[in-house]
Parts: sequence; structure tokens; C-alpha cells
Amino acid sequence: MGMVGGGRGAFIGAVHRMAAALDGEIELVCGAFSSDPEKSRLSGKDLFLPEDRVYGSYEEMIKKEKQLPEGERMDFVSIVTPNHMHYGPAKLALQNGFHVVCDKPIAFNLKEAKDLARLVKKTGLLFALTHNYTGYPMVKQARMMVEKGKIGKVRKIVVEYPQGWLSTKLEDTGQKQAAWRTDPKRSGAAGAMGDIGTHAENLAEYITGLKIKNLCADINIMVEGRKLDDDGNVLLEFDNGARGILFASQISAGEENNLRIRIYGEKAGLEWAQQEPNTLIVKWLDKSMEIIRTGVGNLYPEAQAATRIPAGHPEGYLEAFATIYRNFAICLRAYLNNKKPKAIYTDFPTVEDGVRGMRFIDKVIESGKSKQKWIRF
Amino acid sequence: MGMVGGGRGAFIGAVHRMAAALDGEIELVCGAFSSDPEKSRLSGKDLFLPEDRVYGSYEEMIKKEKQLPEGERMDFVSIVTPNHMHYGPAKLALQNGFHVVCDKPIAFNLKEAKDLARLVKKTGLLFALTHNYTGYPMVKQARMMVEKGKIGKVRKIVVEYPQGWLSTKLEDTGQKQAAWRTDPKRSGAAGAMGDIGTHAENLAEYITGLKIKNLCADINIMVEGRKLDDDGNVLLEFDNGARGILFASQISAGEENNLRIRIYGEKAGLEWAQQEPNTLIVKWLDKSMEIIRTGVGNLYPEAQAATRIPAGHPEGYLEAFATIYRNFAICLRAYLNNKKPKAIYTDFPTVEDGVRGMRFIDKVIESGKSKQKWIRF
Amino acid sequence: MGMVGGGRGAFIGAVHRMAAALDGEIELVCGAFSSDPEKSRLSGKDLFLPEDRVYGSYEEMIKKEKQLPEGERMDFVSIVTPNHMHYGPAKLALQNGFHVVCDKPIAFNLKEAKDLARLVKKTGLLFALTHNYTGYPMVKQARMMVEKGKIGKVRKIVVEYPQGWLSTKLEDTGQKQAAWRTDPKRSGAAGAMGDIGTHAENLAEYITGLKIKNLCADINIMVEGRKLDDDGNVLLEFDNGARGILFASQISAGEENNLRIRIYGEKAGLEWAQQEPNTLIVKWLDKSMEIIRTGVGNLYPEAQAATRIPAGHPEGYLEAFATIYRNFAICLRAYLNNKKPKAIYTDFPTVEDGVRGMRFIDKVIESGKSKQKWIRF
Amino acid sequence: MGMVGGGRGAFIGAVHRMAAALDGEIELVCGAFSSDPEKSRLSGKDLFLPEDRVYGSYEEMIKKEKQLPEGERMDFVSIVTPNHMHYGPAKLALQNGFHVVCDKPIAFNLKEAKDLARLVKKTGLLFALTHNYTGYPMVKQARMMVEKGKIGKVRKIVVEYPQGWLSTKLEDTGQKQAAWRTDPKRSGAAGAMGDIGTHAENLAEYITGLKIKNLCADINIMVEGRKLDDDGNVLLEFDNGARGILFASQISAGEENNLRIRIYGEKAGLEWAQQEPNTLIVKWLDKSMEIIRTGVGNLYPEAQAATRIPAGHPEGYLEAFATIYRNFAICLRAYLNNKKPKAIYTDFPTVEDGVRGMRFIDKVIESGKSKQKWIRF
Repeated sequence: MGMVGGGRGAFIGAVHRMAAALDGEIELVCGAFSSDPEKSRLSGKDLFLPEDRVYGSYEEMIKKEKQLPEGERMDFVSIVTPNHMHYGPAKLALQNGFHVVCDKPIAFNLKEAKDLARLVKKTGLLFALTHNYTGYPMVKQARMMVEKGKIGKVRKIVVEYPQGWLSTKLEDTGQKQAAWRTDPKRSGAAGAMGDIGTHAENLAEYITGLKIKNLCADINIMVEGRKLDDDGNVLLEFDNGARGILFASQISAGEENNLRIRIYGEKAGLEWAQQEPNTLIVKWLDKSMEIIRTGVGNLYPEAQAATRIPAGHPEGYLEAFATIYRNFAICLRAYLNNKKPKAIYTDFPTVEDGVRGMRFIDKVIESGKSKQKWIRF
Repeated sequence: MGMVGGGRGAFIGAVHRMAAALDGEIELVCGAFSSDPEKSRLSGKDLFLPEDRVYGSYEEMIKKEKQLPEGERMDFVSIVTPNHMHYGPAKLALQNGFHVVCDKPIAFNLKEAKDLARLVKKTGLLFALTHNYTGYPMVKQARMMVEKGKIGKVRKIVVEYPQGWLSTKLEDTGQKQAAWRTDPKRSGAAGAMGDIGTHAENLAEYITGLKIKNLCADINIMVEGRKLDDDGNVLLEFDNGARGILFASQISAGEENNLRIRIYGEKAGLEWAQQEPNTLIVKWLDKSMEIIRTGVGNLYPEAQAATRIPAGHPEGYLEAFATIYRNFAICLRAYLNNKKPKAIYTDFPTVEDGVRGMRFIDKVIESGKSKQKWIRF
Repeated sequence: MGMVGGGRGAFIGAVHRMAAALDGEIELVCGAFSSDPEKSRLSGKDLFLPEDRVYGSYEEMIKKEKQLPEGERMDFVSIVTPNHMHYGPAKLALQNGFHVVCDKPIAFNLKEAKDLARLVKKTGLLFALTHNYTGYPMVKQARMMVEKGKIGKVRKIVVEYPQGWLSTKLEDTGQKQAAWRTDPKRSGAAGAMGDIGTHAENLAEYITGLKIKNLCADINIMVEGRKLDDDGNVLLEFDNGARGILFASQISAGEENNLRIRIYGEKAGLEWAQQEPNTLIVKWLDKSMEIIRTGVGNLYPEAQAATRIPAGHPEGYLEAFATIYRNFAICLRAYLNNKKPKAIYTDFPTVEDGVRGMRFIDKVIESGKSKQKWIRF
Repeated sequence: MGMVGGGRGAFIGAVHRMAAALDGEIELVCGAFSSDPEKSRLSGKDLFLPEDRVYGSYEEMIKKEKQLPEGERMDFVSIVTPNHMHYGPAKLALQNGFHVVCDKPIAFNLKEAKDLARLVKKTGLLFALTHNYTGYPMVKQARMMVEKGKIGKVRKIVVEYPQGWLSTKLEDTGQKQAAWRTDPKRSGAAGAMGDIGTHAENLAEYITGLKIKNLCADINIMVEGRKLDDDGNVLLEFDNGARGILFASQISAGEENNLRIRIYGEKAGLEWAQQEPNTLIVKWLDKSMEIIRTGVGNLYPEAQAATRIPAGHPEGYLEAFATIYRNFAICLRAYLNNKKPKAIYTDFPTVEDGVRGMRFIDKVIESGKSKQKWIRF
């Protein structure tokens, strides 16, 4: 793995490295950790990388790595830069035969996203998008329960992602994470809706297998002087007629990363919350509630495969993130060996999820400005 | 107290009687428990009432009670019939000088509600509407915290009332509660939105002191063949600019009476859930979460006055309901004695809340049918 | 009902009155509310009682009420005084043909308790002891599950009742509840173990149907200068070989009334906590956890009979307390009519539970002082 | 790092490897993964190790690694074998100048433990014992709060570790984990008390800084035919006079790894549960409960240093385990560079904790057989 971005002071880069390291399947072999070559060099040193594998730019990295003998050069690029810097390295990597893992949202705008999708299709290379919440065992269990009809036809979905960290104008204090996320030039057309709303959208579609058909959004800026949305509420209609609510907020004071989803079917309701991820609540219509726990009882193989340790030993965010990387690594090894990976490991978000995420951003922003109730997705 | 409705087989009548009895302030002295005189008679007998105080109709009750000497006759009427039967007895009671406690929503339509409001104003009689959830100590604590500025300016409100009991077509099985609630002739213009949506609306306005200014509703019938909404999602704008989401549902499979509200201000978020009512969660922006519990620490007098027993002994639905009755009784005694009641006991929902509730029903139904995004409340 | 104790400033008296009133089955008709006749008179006035039914002493009350015609005089006495004042009125009431409801622990010492048991047996009168926690629907559900073998043979019981209110020397501040509970002359041989330890003991035996056979207690006074235990930990052996832990504490800082029990059988574990009483957790050996909720699904009739309102509307402490009174009232009416009450209503703690409670107090205090490990119960 | 044990089919070996890998500070360079050389070889291959660094025995590993040039050879040994196989490799490693990380309990018996402690003292080498639960941020926060006097003098400790997985005679089914843990020849003098009771003991002493002074244990075998305890309840007295309860159980049907501790001081109570590890509950005597969450508000630097990601992204068991390894690695690097590590990183369980753990096992087993109440620790 070669990393683009994630140098000193970054947050998500370290997450990607821990996630990639956890299962012993992936080795970080090189990186262009910053657009500042000196900072890249120092970051590489922190990570015990040999100097000649630390590059001053992603262009240099891709070019030089390509010249290395097979088996020695990196197999794939992991892109952990701010949104406006995804497209460039992703495109170049694909054009040079490198597989890609990319942080979400996939790009700066829908056009870039579609372009990458075309390139992936054309090259046949692997592309994983780190919608990491889909890596949790209980999310996979929920998905399988819906797929197998356990809760009946889905009627209603409530998905929410409240955070409180942007309740004040944190971006004015020099906080790096806040700065780029609230900057239209680096973040894209949306703030909260892009950063975390896309996670909510992806999670709802992932678990239910449904697609958003129409939406009606109320998009707001609550902190004065901010340029991108920091709060939004969206009514949803899904392709099977189910209705839904999605909200994402960065001004919900006191909330951490309270991603939560409730799915009501004809026979039962499901509830899952990221902050207690090893629990899946099943609310049956006519019998007692059931609490499914990671590692307990007869789980679907898809859920079991995402579990590393015995029940009652909580697995968290990094483990879910690692599952995306591990599944990608397993598929990549199969690819390199011209084999078919086991089906339960093929499950990671792809470039297509990235395109849907960018369309979601476009559509909620469009709806937010419209006087018309429903907007076609 | 004289009761209208609440005969054998009814649900809410018994709740009102228990609530009225709890504090030893109110005595049930007569009733017209059913439009069927024989059923009324039998119900009265169940309740140990003397035969001559059990009436065959509310008209008879109001007429005969008025003829009794003061001090002997009932002081007020408690109306616990289905929605379409609120207006008649309420009006007649007021016209004959009896105070009124009435179940919610206040009437069958907005016109009736306004008419009652005029009558209350004209007569100066007391009128309590049993939006019982406002009787919980932690709801009152939340209200006071907002009023005193503890959470700063309110920015966002999420209020929800999911139930699952109408996930199937229960009304076809002869279930009495389901039958009238799904019948436009008895329930009014709305189903779920009237029955429980109004509770959510009232709770949000009660705690925050804000008023809904605009709304955008997605109102649906999820169970085929039903005539009134059983699920609805509403975007809200409040008069201070805060945004909100309200949803009410009777097809959220497996949900009991999961009324829940979250209020985010500039400094903190508040969270309260009816199913664990003795807990109020305060999520501070920059410090640890605080769990306020009924009876623990320095609560506002308004919250303390709604608490009967020491901390850790859960108080529930009937106690909250009883607090409405007790406050009404205290105000009534003050009224009868020409005194001013203590301010902390004057707090119960009134005819004006009833008018707002009916307007809410009107507006969400109107919005549900509209292609326009926002509807003025 | 005639009440002994519970005058102005008392706590548990008001609880008994609310509990007795809730279901409309019992009327307070007289009382000797205080050993101070003036205070008794004022208390009676607060309660809207006629002056001639308010007495200056329990002796007077029992004597005068007996002289009233049947149907007019009180049917039973409710004793809500401190522990050292239970025996006198209970004995006199039974000797004069009045049934008794008595607060726990039943008496000041084991001898008194046994004496009352003999008298109850001799007279055939009804005697209810208000171990109110056994009135909760989910406690009854748990009891039935054990009885029906759902969790298999019981192996382990953990029952605990931590409070924090006596963490400081509250009795020195004039707080009335603290004063008598920490006074050996009024409370008896034990402090925390008598006041709340007996609740824990009763609950464990009630749910499991097992009896304590041996115990080993560590009994302590944590607040300097106090004369009775404020904290104790007890190892238990039950008559079927199951082992257990019981602890009761009034110096567990910050705890409210956190009575909680866990019962592990060969097939499943049960968990119930008084502070969230409408939930019973079933932890199965080989399948997902089950959350049984008051009013949801197929509950045992015994649990349903203790439920007044639909699921999701929390029922609390007063309702559980009221169930003791209601069951007692139903049995009393059957007694007065020479009928057999329905089995599901015969379930309330009796004088025999009172004797066991007093023995428990004796034995834990004995064990606390002993160097020997196990003491025979 | 060179690993002893943890070959194919083992559980804890993989945990150690993931924990060691997570922070990118430690590299697995060699191993003797099984006493079966072929199995060791295959396990090494699974882990992408070069063949010449996979050994057939720990003796061979230590001998050959020692011959490698400094900088190339392993720095320390990680011992992840069953209990009876800890002493041998630990001793040999220390004697040959290798630092040691060892799974708990430290040895087969107290004598071995003391011997290792002597050897560590003599050689000055680093020795970490993986009482992993002490690696959780909220455990460290609790420890600091006690140390800084936030909860006042500690009065009572309740620590418990119930599991249910040995409710049936799983060891007869060939389950490897169950087999050695229930076998006196491999596990030592205790079953549940050694495997998980020592975790509970260590956690209580770690957080409070107190030492157990006396204990009284009820030790039982609940599953017929088993040779070692599968359930035990222990009364504790600490060196400051505080009292406690410790229980450990493997027959608590339906429990996962429900390690939980409550600590009551004069001013507040603390509560932490391993299954929701990012939450620390503080129950204050006179004010609202506080919920401290990993990453929220002003935490002690010791807690912050054990946190890798922003609040609301749950960190679990592997992260806590990894913190032990990371702190060990930081101290090891300081050792190798002849520097003093930062104080907040020096915090990991040592050989002395191991000696206390073995003494705990000895004493509870002795007490379990004794008729005397208290046994000196």
C-alpha cells in the first residue's frame, strides 16, 4: 500500500494506517504524505519507511513505484486527502494500473465521480470507498436480515448522523479538520451533507438494498458566517414506496458521532447505533424485543466474517474500518492470483457507491434551494 | 368530577380515573359513561357510584347535576370520549358553568376548537387538555432549562412518536381503540398525526416555548385500505429560526409509545424519552454529559412539584397524567375560593393548546397534499 | 381502610394512601396518623376525613371503629409507622377482628414477628406485608418463568440494593427518615439490612421460589458514629444448592434505589432492575438476548394482571405498590363474601414473609459478628 | 517481537498480534507458534514470516535469535501459551536478555511467579503482563479520578466478571479454549478465578490503588464432573478499610464478558463496564450523574494518551490491548536508547501484578476450602 495524504497532523490518515495494519494482510510500503515534500519526508520517517519510498507528490510516487519490479512495488494506492484532492491521484493511479482505496466522498463533484467510475470499469481494477460504517458486523447482520425477509417489506427508514463539533465557528481557530470541511473550495458543494450525510445515505441503502427515488431537503447554515451547510433534514422516498427521514448535523451540541438507523418493516423494526455498534435491536411486531450481539448465537456468515474476537469484547470503529481493508485485500489477492474471492469477502463499498454519494450531495443541495417539495434523485 | 365516556371496555377513561384519584384531591361523583344508558349504569356500578348519579347521557348529567346544591354537585366534567364527541359535552358543560377537563385532541376540527376557546374566554371557566406528557417532572425540568437559557438559543428540535400497534389492519378485528382512531367520522381529518402527532407538536412547543411557523409534511397510509394516515414525517421551522423534524407513526413495527424529543441549543443538547421518563440527558458542548434524574440534585421547583416520591422510585405515565389533574384541582380550588394558585401549579395544557393542536392537524394534512414545500402554520 | 401513622411529614404514609387509592377499590375512612393527637387531627383534615374518624391513638381507633356498624367501620388497618411501632397496632387489630396491611420489616424483632404469625393463623384474618417490589409486572413475569422451568435449574443469584442517601451523617441534620432508620430503638437490630436488605432477600426468594439455607455476612458501619449497619455484603447458599450474593448499602454514593437482581439458571439468565422496572432481560445460553417489556407479547397472566396501561407507558413504584393493595382488596372482598379469589390475585407478601425477613435480619447480624464462615439460616 | 504460542486454532495469539500491529510500533519478526514444529511452520507461513525465523520450540527461538546481530534479532518475546507454559519461555527469555510480554495469569503457580519477579529485578529487563482491561481510556480516567481524590476515600468496591460460556460441559466437545482452562494440569489451581477472577482483582487494585488485605471466598463447581471452579463469590477487605465484593463466573448463562466495576467513595460512585468501555459513569452524592466519554471534555492526559480516534467512534478490546503493547514499546525504545519514557506511557501491568494475581488464586482457593471467615491475603 502506498498512501496519498495522511501526513503529520492529519486525522484520517492514521485511521487508514491502523485499519490496514490490523489484520496483518497489508503493509505500508511507500507514501506521498503531503503536498509539502519536507512534511512528507518527516511523516514517512515517523512511519519507519525507507527514505527512497517517501515521495514529494503523488505523481512522483505513482511514476517511481511503477518502475519498481513487480512484487516490490506497491499494489494499491490509499487516498486520504481532503475531498478536492481525491480525483487527481485516483485517476492517475488507475491509469497506471494501480488499484485504489479512497476516502469518502469519492470526489469534489459528480462529474469527477462519474469519470472515475468509467475508468474503473475500463481498467477492471479494484476500487474501494471507505464508507467504513458498513464494516460493522451488526450492520452486515441487519443487511442480511432485510435481504432474507426477516422484517418483511420495508416501510420506513430513519437515519441520522448528528455531531456537535461545529456548534461554534471552530474553523476560525485554525483547527485543520474544521477548516477544510467548511471550505467550499476543498469540501465541495456541501458541508455536513457531504461529510456525514453521505455516510447516512450509504448506510440506509446498504442495509435495505433500496434506492432513494425522491427527496425533499431543508438545508441550513446555523453558525453565522459559515459558507456550507452545517445542518440538514431530508424527507425521502425509496424505490419500493418506503418513506424515510435522513438528517445530518454538525451543530447538534453535545453529540459525538451518533450515526443511528431505524428500519421498520411489516414484521419488525431494526435499530442500530454506531456508538454501541455491537448491538442490533430487533423489535418484533408480536413478541419480545431481541438484542442481537456481535458473536452471540446464529449470526449470518457475513456478520461472523466481520468479527475478530469472542462476544462481549467490544469491537469498534477501527475494526469496522479494517474490515473494509481486509475485504479489499482478500479480493486483491484473488485478483492477483486470478481467483474468485469468497463471496462473504467481496463486500466493500465501490466506485458506484461513490457516484450515488455525489449525486446525493447534488440533489440535497438542489432541493434545499427549491420551493418544490419533491426532487427526483 | 363527573365523567363523560369511559365506560366498560374503554381504555382512556380508566386512566383518567386513576390519574384523578391518585392524589386524593378529586372524587368521581357522577358520570355518563356511555351513550348506551344500560352500559353507563353498569359502568357506574363497577365504580361504586350511587345509582342516581349515573346518567344515560351527558345532557342529562349536566342538567341534573346543575340542579343539585352547590358543594354536592360535581365541580367539573371530565371528557374521555372519542374525538368527535368532545365538543358537545365540553360546550354544554361550559355553558352551564362547569369547568372542563378534556382528552386530546380537543375536538373534531379546528372550528369546534376555536368555538370552545371563545367560550372559555367568555365564561372564565377552567379548561384543561390532557396532553399528559407535559406532566412528567423531567419534561418540566427541560422546559425550565430552556427558559433559563441553560442550553442557549435553540437551533434544532427532533421530536418523534413512533408506535407499531397499527402495523396490521387491527381495526378489522373489532379492536375498539383501533376502530375509532382509523375512522374519519370519529377521529377527524388525521389518524396518527391527530392521535399522537399532536402530542409531539405540543411537547416540542411546551418545552422550548417556540412556535411552529412553517411546515412541510409527507403524510402516508402504509397499510392498504386504511383511510387515515398511519405514518407521517414533517419538516419544521420555528418562529426563532430553529429547524426541526417531527414524525409520528403507528406502523413502526415493534415500537411501543416511544415519544422522544431532542433539543439542540447553542450550548447543549437535551434528550428525553417517554419510555424512560425519569431521566433527562444533557449533552454539553464542552464537558461531560449530565444525566438529570427525577428527585436528584437541584431541580427547578416546577419539576420538584411534579415529583411524589424519592429518587430511584420510578414515576410513570399515570403519575404524569395525575399531575395534570392535580394542578387543575389546585387551580380549581383557588378559583372556588377566589384565590390565586401558586404559580408552579398553574401549569397544565389549556384550550389554547387545543386550538394549536387542531391547527397542526389541519396544516400537516394540507401540506401532505401539496406540491409546495413550505406551508405557513 | 384505617391508617396508623403517616401523618404530616411522613413519607411512606402518603405512598400507601396513593397506592390504596389508585384502583378505586379502597377508601381511606379513618386514621390515627400520629402519636401526637393534634398532629393526627391536622393530618386527617388534610385528607378530607370527617373529624370523628380521626383518632388520637391506634388503640382509640380500633376500639371506636369496632363499635361502628358493619359496612360503615373500617375493614382493615394499614400500618405505616416506624418498625418499633408495627407490632402493637397489628396485634390489637388482629385481636379485634380487623385485617392488616403492614409496612416492612414486619416488626422490631423476630419474636414479635412470630407472635403475629401465630395470631394470623389463629384468627384466619388477612395480613399483607408491603414488600412492594414484588408488585411489578416484570417481577411476576420473572417468577413465572423460573417456576415454569424456562431458565432451568437456578445456579446463581445476585441481588443488590445500593442507596447513597446515608453517605453522610444525615440523621444529625434532623432529617426524620434518616433519624429513625439509624436508631436501634426504633429500627431494630439492623439498619440497611433491615430497611432494604430484607427487600432484596424477599425479592430473591419470591422470584426463584428458593429459600436461603446458609449465609455468610460482612456487616459494616462506614459512617463514623453511626450505630447500625449502613453497608453489608452477604454470601448465600440456597436450598437447591444455588449460590448467591446479596448486598445492601446506604453509603453507595450517588445510588438512588438501585434494587437489581440477576438469576442464572442452566439455560438462561434473568435480569431486572427496579429503576427501569418495565424491562426484563433474558440472556439465553445459545441465542440472542430477549427483552421482555410490560405489556408486550405473550406474558404470563400473573404479569398481565399487574399491568394497567398499554405497553410503552411506564408503570412505576406507586403502581407496583398499588398492586399489593389491589390484590389484598380483591382477596378481602372475596373473604367478606365467603368466596375464593382468583388465583392470580392472591399473590401478595404475607406474615410468613415477614417472619423470614426478621430471621434474615437476625442471621446477618449474627453472621456479621461471627468468625465462622457459614451460619445456618 | 517473537511469539511463543498462538499457532493455528489459538485465540489469544491472534489478539496479541493485532494488538501489537495496531500502532505500527512493533513488528512480528519470528515465532515458535506451537510445540508441534510442523504446526509452527505452517502458522509462520500464514503470517508471512520468512521460514528461517519460524522455530520448532521456544528454546530454539531464543537460542537462534540471540545469535543474530543486534537490530535484526527480536527485541522481546510475547508469550501467549496456556498458563502452564508461561514460566519456561519467560525465564529463558529473561536469562538470555530478552524483554517479555506475557499473557495472564503470569504462571502456573505462585512459586513460578515469584521466581520470575526475582529474575526481572535481577536483569532489569522489561516485563509486561497483559491485563488488557487496564488499557481502556475510561479505566485510566477512573484511576486518575480516584488518585486525585475526586470521589473521596473509597468505601466500597464491587467488581464482577460473569461469563456464561462454560454453562455446559463444553470441554467434552473438544473445544480447545475450554479444554485447557478446565484442566488443572494446564490451568493451575483455579479455573474461573484464575482465568477471569484475576482480571477483576487486578482491575480493582489498579483503579483504586488499594490492596486486598483479607478475603472470604465461596468457590464452587456448578457443572458436574468439572475439576476446577467455574463460579466463585468473594468478600473483600482492602488495606484502607474499604469493603468489597468480587465475583467471577463462567456459568452465568447468557453473559458474554461482562466485566464491570463499581467504586463508591465518600463523595461519588464510579461505574465502568467492559462491554460499553467508552463510558464512565460518575454518580455524585449531591448533584446530577455525569457520563464521561472517551474523547469528550477535559480528560486526564493518561486517558487521552490511550485514545486514538475522536469521540463517538468506539474503541474496543483490541485497542485497549494495543495500548498495553504500545506503552511497552515506548518504554522499550526508551530503554534501548537509555532514555526515560514519558510518565503517561509507563503505565502497563508488570511482573508484580503477576505475583499478586497468583497470590489471589492461592488465597481464594484456600479460603474456599476453609471454615474460617477471613483469610489474610
